[in-house]
Amino acid sequence: MGIHLAHRMDILKASDVRELLKVTQRPEVISFAGGLPAPEFFPGERLADIAREILAGDGARALQYSTTEGHAPLRRQIASRLNALSDARYTADNILITAGSQQGLDLTGKLFLDEGDEVLCESPTYLSVIGAWNVFRPTWVEVPTDDDGMDMAALEERLDRCRRPKLVYVVPNFQNPSGRTWSLERRRRLMEVTGRRGIPVVEDNPYGELRFEGQALPSLKAFDARGLVISLGTFSKIFCPGLRLAWLAAEQPLYEKFVILKQGTDLHTATLSQMMVSRYMERYDLDEDVRRITEAYRIRRDAMLAALEKELPEDVRVTRPAGGLFLWAELPPGVNARDLLGRCVARDVAFVPGEAFFPNGGHENTLRLNFSNMPPDRIAEGIRRIAAALAEMQAEAA
Amino acid sequence: MGIHLAHRMDILKASDVRELLKVTQRPEVISFAGGLPAPEFFPGERLADIAREILAGDGARALQYSTTEGHAPLRRQIASRLNALSDARYTADNILITAGSQQGLDLTGKLFLDEGDEVLCESPTYLSVIGAWNVFRPTWVEVPTDDDGMDMAALEERLDRCRRPKLVYVVPNFQNPSGRTWSLERRRRLMEVTGRRGIPVVEDNPYGELRFEGQALPSLKAFDARGLVISLGTFSKIFCPGLRLAWLAAEQPLYEKFVILKQGTDLHTATLSQMMVSRYMERYDLDEDVRRITEAYRIRRDAMLAALEKELPEDVRVTRPAGGLFLWAELPPGVNARDLLGRCVARDVAFVPGEAFFPNGGHENTLRLNFSNMPPDRIAEGIRRIAAALAEMQAEAA
Repeated sequence: MGIHLAHRMDILKASDVRELLKVTQRPEVISFAGGLPAPEFFPGERLADIAREILAGDGARALQYSTTEGHAPLRRQIASRLNALSDARYTADNILITAGSQQGLDLTGKLFLDEGDEVLCESPTYLSVIGAWNVFRPTWVEVPTDDDGMDMAALEERLDRCRRPKLVYVVPNFQNPSGRTWSLERRRRLMEVTGRRGIPVVEDNPYGELRFEGQALPSLKAFDARGLVISLGTFSKIFCPGLRLAWLAAEQPLYEKFVILKQGTDLHTATLSQMMVSRYMERYDLDEDVRRITEAYRIRRDAMLAALEKELPEDVRVTRPAGGLFLWAELPPGVNARDLLGRCVARDVAFVPGEAFFPNGGHENTLRLNFSNMPPDRIAEGIRRIAAALAEMQAEAA
Repeated sequence: MGIHLAHRMDILKASDVRELLKVTQRPEVISFAGGLPAPEFFPGERLADIAREILAGDGARALQYSTTEGHAPLRRQIASRLNALSDARYTADNILITAGSQQGLDLTGKLFLDEGDEVLCESPTYLSVIGAWNVFRPTWVEVPTDDDGMDMAALEERLDRCRRPKLVYVVPNFQNPSGRTWSLERRRRLMEVTGRRGIPVVEDNPYGELRFEGQALPSLKAFDARGLVISLGTFSKIFCPGLRLAWLAAEQPLYEKFVILKQGTDLHTATLSQMMVSRYMERYDLDEDVRRITEAYRIRRDAMLAALEKELPEDVRVTRPAGGLFLWAELPPGVNARDLLGRCVARDVAFVPGEAFFPNGGHENTLRLNFSNMPPDRIAEGIRRIAAALAEMQAEAA
């Protein structure tokens, strides 16, 4: 093109999920691809009244510039909620309102990552952290992960070989994409290992409140003796994503640096959206909403697990998530999930091939299935179609 | 702190303007410091009805994830408006909705700047572009600027000495901080000079519609034969800033790269805000709103110019902006504007010392005055207090 871009643009490409979302917006498509919450639980009517009230009564404030840190009442509400849910001891002064957790990731990359710095993550890891951080050109170190979380011996062994390990990124609850949840013991051990070495940990927790069964476990923050945990949380999955409201919780001196970076990135998050969510939480019981959403997603998970068991051959392995929005499937070796997707899109059903969740590639026989955005009968139909596509593909190969 | 941050954090510090905003939120302060629009023109009641309508009738869409590029109807409306105002030929496919123009700056820095790349800018330049781009560690090359815009001979001479000139950043209309507007001839020449060398130009135009007198001039885009102009525009100054809605206009292949970067930065801008502004523009005449705002700001500019002429000694030079929100003052050599600010804050009046607008420092005897956020009588009173503080300071020095 003749124009010289930054070197960071060499490796960036559009994300599969976002490109797929475009195809899957056709209403006839049964999409297990995105991470879309069920819109029937969005409190549109309640928010309609709240937005009206705020704009008519306090429009000069709701529409004016505001502080970078965020709307003070909302920051206090988030701090109290986090403390109640996860044994943390945050105050409003630890909470930075962000434009989605994606912005929390962008700011964290900006704060820590120089080219070639090592980032340690679960394998597989969240797709969009790869996109957010690749602009800072880190080296991704994937750490083997089982049903209890990261393998701690493998983590230590990899840390010993790193030159500049800067961050550990994990999703301890109902991980995206695997659906797995870390055990208590692994949580404690991770904080010992990283605390001893002084390595910051990003605890990304968008799904933790959406638990279908079993007991909630303490957050990593609960074991953070040195102020090394950066917690990311969001209203996207427990309320609605379109307002782009999330938060980053951190201790000083990191907190003030995040504020400076956010200032240079977008000055502040939209004032009206912040005031709306704050008033909603004052007036209604968000926990009650979360219970309703969770119950619906549990039913959908069960529908998907039942359909998978019924339709798919035994050599396809799937996880059984205890919460969240996703499960993970491993096809027999040699079956390429991207090829399968091609056949599935022709049948109006979609998912995300798993390869995209491995920063260093590979694992072409894996895929992620989202179960939150489709009712049970469409889930069953969609899995039938995937099974048919897979059978066709395997018959042709034989 | 024991934690290793990215090298880019070495030079970042909180912006004067944002820190000052905190002090100036006290209602008794007469603030000429921020760039706050006058909130009495925000259409709170109209937006209250529109927000209610959208959330009650189309909440599932307004609160759901959306596409990175932005709400399609709004992108079409912006393209038509730009074409009507500035001889451009944009379509919706050139328009990316951003979270304020600040995000447009962040994305542009991400797309182009490696450490040590040269950025050429007016001297002085917009404070927040310095904050946005310093995270990418460029070398700032300030180009002398007079009342007609950048000195073109000086620009060419500096370009000849650059190793990797990546971007030219300018605010051609009612510049922040100087209030100056580029002549037609300088606009044409800039595009010749940069077009010949293939250097992209960022045309930041938040204030262009707020013209008090004289004829509107063509945009730089009107002279862009090679698709090198990246245009930034915003609803912040012509509508309201709290929704954080702005746009970036660019040609392919740059456009698609901006979309990928935005995806990694915050996925997309809030859906509800975009739908609200789109519906507002459908239903009401935004141009009529702009005329009312412009007339009010013209009266405020006149009040400030009159007060400056009456109160300040002749050796203080001020610009006479033909539009926008700001004017620029140069104190006698040796008078430090930061010291003056200290005395002014004690008198409940504030402005921004000019040094912050020079990426390479210096010019301690300059300052920026905003006239959009205070009514004429408070403007007169504020300028009286600044004059008194200056007189006191000069008396003590003598």
